[in-house]
Amino acid sequence: MADRADHRDYLIGVDFGGTKIYTGVFTANLTCLGRARVSTKASRGAAAVIERIARCVHEAVDECDLKISQVKGAGIGAPGAVDAESGVVIFGPNLGWENVPLKKELEKHLGVPVFVENDCNMAMLGVYEAELEAKPRHALGMFVGTGIGAGLIINGELYSGFNHTAGEVGHIVLESGRLPSPTPLNVPRCGCGNLGCLEALASRTAIFNRIRAAVHEGQQTMLTLFAKDFDKLRSKDLRKAIRRGDKLVQKVVQEAAQYIGIAVASLMNVLNPEVVVLGGGVIEALEEEMMPTITETALDYAMPGTAKGVQIRASKLADEAGITGGAVLALRGTK
Amino acid sequence: MADRADHRDYLIGVDFGGTKIYTGVFTANLTCLGRARVSTKASRGAAAVIERIARCVHEAVDECDLKISQVKGAGIGAPGAVDAESGVVIFGPNLGWENVPLKKELEKHLGVPVFVENDCNMAMLGVYEAELEAKPRHALGMFVGTGIGAGLIINGELYSGFNHTAGEVGHIVLESGRLPSPTPLNVPRCGCGNLGCLEALASRTAIFNRIRAAVHEGQQTMLTLFAKDFDKLRSKDLRKAIRRGDKLVQKVVQEAAQYIGIAVASLMNVLNPEVVVLGGGVIEALEEEMMPTITETALDYAMPGTAKGVQIRASKLADEAGITGGAVLALRGTK
Repeated sequence: MADRADHRDYLIGVDFGGTKIYTGVFTANLTCLGRARVSTKASRGAAAVIERIARCVHEAVDECDLKISQVKGAGIGAPGAVDAESGVVIFGPNLGWENVPLKKELEKHLGVPVFVENDCNMAMLGVYEAELEAKPRHALGMFVGTGIGAGLIINGELYSGFNHTAGEVGHIVLESGRLPSPTPLNVPRCGCGNLGCLEALASRTAIFNRIRAAVHEGQQTMLTLFAKDFDKLRSKDLRKAIRRGDKLVQKVVQEAAQYIGIAVASLMNVLNPEVVVLGGGVIEALEEEMMPTITETALDYAMPGTAKGVQIRASKLADEAGITGGAVLALRGTK
Repeated sequence: MADRADHRDYLIGVDFGGTKIYTGVFTANLTCLGRARVSTKASRGAAAVIERIARCVHEAVDECDLKISQVKGAGIGAPGAVDAESGVVIFGPNLGWENVPLKKELEKHLGVPVFVENDCNMAMLGVYEAELEAKPRHALGMFVGTGIGAGLIINGELYSGFNHTAGEVGHIVLESGRLPSPTPLNVPRCGCGNLGCLEALASRTAIFNRIRAAVHEGQQTMLTLFAKDFDKLRSKDLRKAIRRGDKLVQKVVQEAAQYIGIAVASLMNVLNPEVVVLGGGVIEALEEEMMPTITETALDYAMPGTAKGVQIRASKLADEAGITGGAVLALRGTK
């Protein structure tokens, strides 16, 4: 908790996704001093992307009137299966990456120690260290944005499983669509190829897809006034529409919240965590609209006994969870 | 691995469910010497049930021409939330139990140290010690019988969660039935009150319910020749019917196997275990009929990368998993 900012005490957190790179410079007590953001441009290949990450780090450092020589280490979260020990991104489908030695390459560019984790694990680490003061032994962080993923804390430690792919909660199936029915069901197909995954029912992508389909069927929404092309809209546009009385958006967002609640209950029944934290862009923008429904549905579906004393809450870190977790990773790694 | 059977070396395993109590006497190398079985009669209350457990233990010991004084300890699995440290059954809905000090009470009857666990955890412990020679760090055991539950091994240890209720995989939702549809869906309600839980779609109870409903709708099955009342039938009757060409039973059992496969994939996506073991009465009786479908569906639904090198297999211990796990529990506890 020392406020004294020794000149080698600064830490970098990098939240690195398929569309954007977001970096932050932190003190050892996890105060963020400055940030920078660039687009990923994954199609240019791994070497170019790693250069962009390095540039974004330098920008954030410069923004704080610091030099990279004052940085102790950097922690970076990557979307996909990550071997934290070797710092290799084993498999990153959104990036088109396979076995990229991110730690080694980024260290060449930055000249400081780099530590790599899965992006959702890293965000959960940020939430755990900076937000969960009671340090629960078992906790689940679910992040709802373009996709849906989670970070798991088990016995006080990040859990990543056998192939470093644990926490893919966006791909639990909630509507398998297999029940015999006289009419074909309207079960959405997920990006992963399966029918009825949580991500296909409740991510930002899914919410906009369902609104788009309803508009196609003749239903009305003021979102069409905000932009011709829904691809240009963000979660905060959904909030704006709901607060202005848009019934369609209200309904679709509530249905998404119910699905998230059912998924949270399924995960509570399997993992019985002490704390469930919801984060990501959708929750950040729509916390007031979604959290009551998520919590109520989760408690309704959880097994008796399982929910006793369990907290379900939205993260206060919002979009900063990832970079904060990166700083924690760097802090732990350089200790 | 000592074959020398010292006179205090025997161990007792007790598999204790809502309908039956099953006990086994084991050597220290987990060879079962004898077994006994009685009905639970849960309605008589906890004190009477604990007496029946003690009687069943004495019967198994007598069956082996041994005396209880030659027993080192007993391990017992109970259906519900169990505090393994205190040996208290916190919550056992199928028994009508709340906060029953099973360890303390059973020790009074037996005069040997007693160790208590959740029944599925105990069965998984039996599988882990007696069957999984490679000792995977992370493993999932799913047990399919009247209900569906699981035991989780994480970092080489049983995992039971915050309220000791982890592993309730029977209550993950696979058919939430919430999608808008022109006709009401035929989604079955689970004993827990929710719609579309795995247990309501693929347990023995669910399989017989679906066959019963089909017969009610006029479909034919030879099961009606085996018994007027389906409640008298067991999983092996399903196998018999399938092997004699019963199309309805074949179809319903295959659908149950698909649901189990989807659930296994959802759990693989969340937990990324190295080994998934399927056990319980339904799998024991219908291994040949169900395992190919379960495995194929699970691999189809698992995320890329998650299934790499992961084993999905039926337990060889079958109905002995629970009592074997009890012996392991007793062995560990008395070390």
